[in-house]
Amino acid sequence: MSVYDQGLDKCAANYAPLTPSTFLQRAARVYADRTAVVHGDLRRDYASLYVRCRRLASALRQQGIGEGDTVSVIAPNTPEMLEMHFGVPMSQGVLNTINTRLDPAAIAFMLEFAEAKVLFVDRQFAELAKQSLDRMTARPLVIGIDDVLEPEGEVIGEMDYEAFIATGDPEFDWQEPADEWQAISLNFTSGTTGNPKGVVYHHRGAYLNAMSAIIAFDLGNSPTYLWTVPMFHCNGWCCPWAVTAAGGMHVCLRKVDPALIYELINKHNVSHMCGAPTVLNMILNAPEAVRRELPSGGVSISSGGAAPPSAVISGMQKLGFNVAHLYGLTESYGPSHWCEWQPDWDDLDASGKSQKLARQGVPCLTITDHAVLDPETGQILPEDGQTLGELVMRGNTLMKGYLKNPSATEEAFAGGWFHTGDLAVMHPDFYAEIKDRSKDIIISGGENISSLEVEELLYQHPEIMEAAVVARPDDNWGETPCAFVCLKERAGRSLTADALIDWCRARMAHFKCPKTVVFGPLPKTSTGKIQKFVLRERAEQLAASDV
Amino acid sequence: MSVYDQGLDKCAANYAPLTPSTFLQRAARVYADRTAVVHGDLRRDYASLYVRCRRLASALRQQGIGEGDTVSVIAPNTPEMLEMHFGVPMSQGVLNTINTRLDPAAIAFMLEFAEAKVLFVDRQFAELAKQSLDRMTARPLVIGIDDVLEPEGEVIGEMDYEAFIATGDPEFDWQEPADEWQAISLNFTSGTTGNPKGVVYHHRGAYLNAMSAIIAFDLGNSPTYLWTVPMFHCNGWCCPWAVTAAGGMHVCLRKVDPALIYELINKHNVSHMCGAPTVLNMILNAPEAVRRELPSGGVSISSGGAAPPSAVISGMQKLGFNVAHLYGLTESYGPSHWCEWQPDWDDLDASGKSQKLARQGVPCLTITDHAVLDPETGQILPEDGQTLGELVMRGNTLMKGYLKNPSATEEAFAGGWFHTGDLAVMHPDFYAEIKDRSKDIIISGGENISSLEVEELLYQHPEIMEAAVVARPDDNWGETPCAFVCLKERAGRSLTADALIDWCRARMAHFKCPKTVVFGPLPKTSTGKIQKFVLRERAEQLAASDV
Repeated sequence: MSVYDQGLDKCAANYAPLTPSTFLQRAARVYADRTAVVHGDLRRDYASLYVRCRRLASALRQQGIGEGDTVSVIAPNTPEMLEMHFGVPMSQGVLNTINTRLDPAAIAFMLEFAEAKVLFVDRQFAELAKQSLDRMTARPLVIGIDDVLEPEGEVIGEMDYEAFIATGDPEFDWQEPADEWQAISLNFTSGTTGNPKGVVYHHRGAYLNAMSAIIAFDLGNSPTYLWTVPMFHCNGWCCPWAVTAAGGMHVCLRKVDPALIYELINKHNVSHMCGAPTVLNMILNAPEAVRRELPSGGVSISSGGAAPPSAVISGMQKLGFNVAHLYGLTESYGPSHWCEWQPDWDDLDASGKSQKLARQGVPCLTITDHAVLDPETGQILPEDGQTLGELVMRGNTLMKGYLKNPSATEEAFAGGWFHTGDLAVMHPDFYAEIKDRSKDIIISGGENISSLEVEELLYQHPEIMEAAVVARPDDNWGETPCAFVCLKERAGRSLTADALIDWCRARMAHFKCPKTVVFGPLPKTSTGKIQKFVLRERAEQLAASDV
Repeated sequence: MSVYDQGLDKCAANYAPLTPSTFLQRAARVYADRTAVVHGDLRRDYASLYVRCRRLASALRQQGIGEGDTVSVIAPNTPEMLEMHFGVPMSQGVLNTINTRLDPAAIAFMLEFAEAKVLFVDRQFAELAKQSLDRMTARPLVIGIDDVLEPEGEVIGEMDYEAFIATGDPEFDWQEPADEWQAISLNFTSGTTGNPKGVVYHHRGAYLNAMSAIIAFDLGNSPTYLWTVPMFHCNGWCCPWAVTAAGGMHVCLRKVDPALIYELINKHNVSHMCGAPTVLNMILNAPEAVRRELPSGGVSISSGGAAPPSAVISGMQKLGFNVAHLYGLTESYGPSHWCEWQPDWDDLDASGKSQKLARQGVPCLTITDHAVLDPETGQILPEDGQTLGELVMRGNTLMKGYLKNPSATEEAFAGGWFHTGDLAVMHPDFYAEIKDRSKDIIISGGENISSLEVEELLYQHPEIMEAAVVARPDDNWGETPCAFVCLKERAGRSLTADALIDWCRARMAHFKCPKTVVFGPLPKTSTGKIQKFVLRERAEQLAASDV
């Protein structure tokens, strides 16, 4: 034992378990009168937000909520949803935000699996919640949220949210968790097969990812943040905590609607927002009539979930949005990577810039390492921008693990790496580029085809708004690329499947070009991700009906 | 035990002890070709910097350095000094940077107290080191640093730095500390009485304070940082780590010289720098001939150590510097507070702005709380901007404690707070304002006089460059204010003591005005702090000679 270990222990003065709840406490004092939340005509300052969160935490304690107790919520991005992100952790409970697009069977499964003690329900989702609760044996305490901006639905439950928090102490003396490794939230993956997995976050990781987000998003001092990413998705990429730490203004948004987005950006001088590429696409293709002038400094928009096609990036930049590209998974608290801009990229032409920016990029400060592994041998593959393998990473902002699923946790963390399940190459400059989800690779005549590469080309076609490519089973080739395409709404134009295939063949190796093209709207998840598993089913049906 | 504690443990994939060494590892990959260090004509990129630090760590390991072993260094802000901040922690050793202005007796005491195993010595300080070593019984391994920019002094020791690191492995597989609470560095306080205390930092705190510094200094992406704060002072406020994390360029500086500062700012487009108010004053009062144009975006200068007088702040802003005001102590890894700008201050007039900015401000994100306590009762005093007490704080960026000094550690952390020893008021907006060090309060005729308040007035006098006020013992009043004043160099002007006292009496309560004025240069520490204890001695001599 060295002299540096003697009489130099942790004490109340020099050690506090890391928790993002301290960011709100600080904000309530440093930014007391500053507007914390905007929702329609509603404005609340940081002092009020903190009081409401303390009341919520206190009311939950009175209902017996403590360490390891799950508090679930079905709500869009409202002030109450933001309050949950502080009030529940301050009660020592675990926040479980539920995807509002799920069906009652899935929600009932999650609530039972999480052993939810309390369920908060926004009135819009009253019917969904009732049907879910009807399937359960152990019913949680239900609290209805009556949002002034929501005319539909019923306020259900034993009590209404306002009445509930009124039972709490506005000066509640909340405590940091005894251990920063304590669970703070539970996020179910949108797993396309089988039952969803429950991803558990801890206080330390939420704190660190929020710090990292302030730096990566360059939030600066007092940003204005528009809530386009659902908070039920990876806790809104930790932005409830990050934006609060930065003393920012949270502009709530119940629904991702381009007209409303333009209106709120213009009205509140939004400085930052995030969204899936589909959200970018929606903004880019909004009718002229709903577009509004952007703030003079532009709007930073961080896009994650999938690589935004380069045509979308350049289109957004022309409109005055500064597009950043992030990457992450539910298991990594949202963003684990960002495509950090390098000064020498300034000299590239537009296409060169887009190519750089289309890559998922480098790990955030809180991720200590990443690599691309050979799926067979587990060895690190060369950083040559060519060799395809599985992207893995390690660090301090990766989940505790999957709830009640030790085998899945062990598999995810095998060999001391978190396995993303994404196929990527590592470039010589240490930037990772996802080529596909393992299951999204199309193998045609023994050749691997990246569906992302085909999609990237399709997005360059002037008449295409959205496109997704999946494998269609084929007796001859094994699989062939099948493109699902949604065209822009313009009168007097029509693109045929054959014309589009020819257009592709003029620009890409023939074996990679779609053999089938289907026109129409694309199915999406609530977070704007295109549901490729639905398209894969359709492609299989097409193949079956051809036989 | 809840379900959230079962099968959800730490593993190599989801947990890594926090250490700032990971910032360099990341920078070497993400910013490999970017210039990391500039020193005269020397340029090194991040890949090279990392290789040199790995060599250094490896060479230290070969000399037997491991956990809890002290590695000391006497050097100014050179590339080698920066390398120490990574190489020593990567070897598991503890970095002990020594103030170059100390005398041999003090340095010998520190080296023996710290049980230094290795001592690195820049050639400029060879004589100082030799005299220090001569006083020691257990002599450490001495390595001389031969800096090309230093023509004076001898390269002493068993080996030269370049030869030493050449013995190390450039691919050394360094390890994170087993525990993030492990000591990373040892900084002696410049204690004005008795032996200095050894402040011990840990890896976790250094990591967190660096993250906080990136946010507080708004370093952004690829800042250019000029090294005006000595790295031997609180490890350069954690900027060796923060600037590296941000992929910034370190511009080294052996000596705080206004001509050189202007030249380097202009040549390298410096974006950020830090310094004591004296450094600001030096820049502000530099002769016209040495001034150079600043970069178009201005230069962010964060000032700490003492409140910069408002005349200095406004003068610097006129020159194109954006002045931020920080506060901290050796015990808080440098900055614990910053005077965060509030948007509504934009509407204040110049004097209103200066008043706001003169306050020490609010805690950084990593400090969880602060307060002003009644020194007698230990109770929290009202936040009224009036009631004077001791500023205290708690959080994750406060030292492990004082080395081999459990009683001082216990006293510093009494009651779950770190006691700063600074007298402050807490304003209703949660901003702290230091009125004085406990020992800097002048008690005259039973009235408390803040020496800072008198100094603030003196700095407004157009002919005064620097001023410091201390207590002069007085048989009648107990104490009276004694002003030491350094005038600006202007031909044909002369200010008398009587004229200055009259000028003060026209502007301030008479009992607060200096009764004695002494003209001449002010004694300073190596970090630019005015040495009030020297002035107090002079004031005592003046009083004694009057009797």
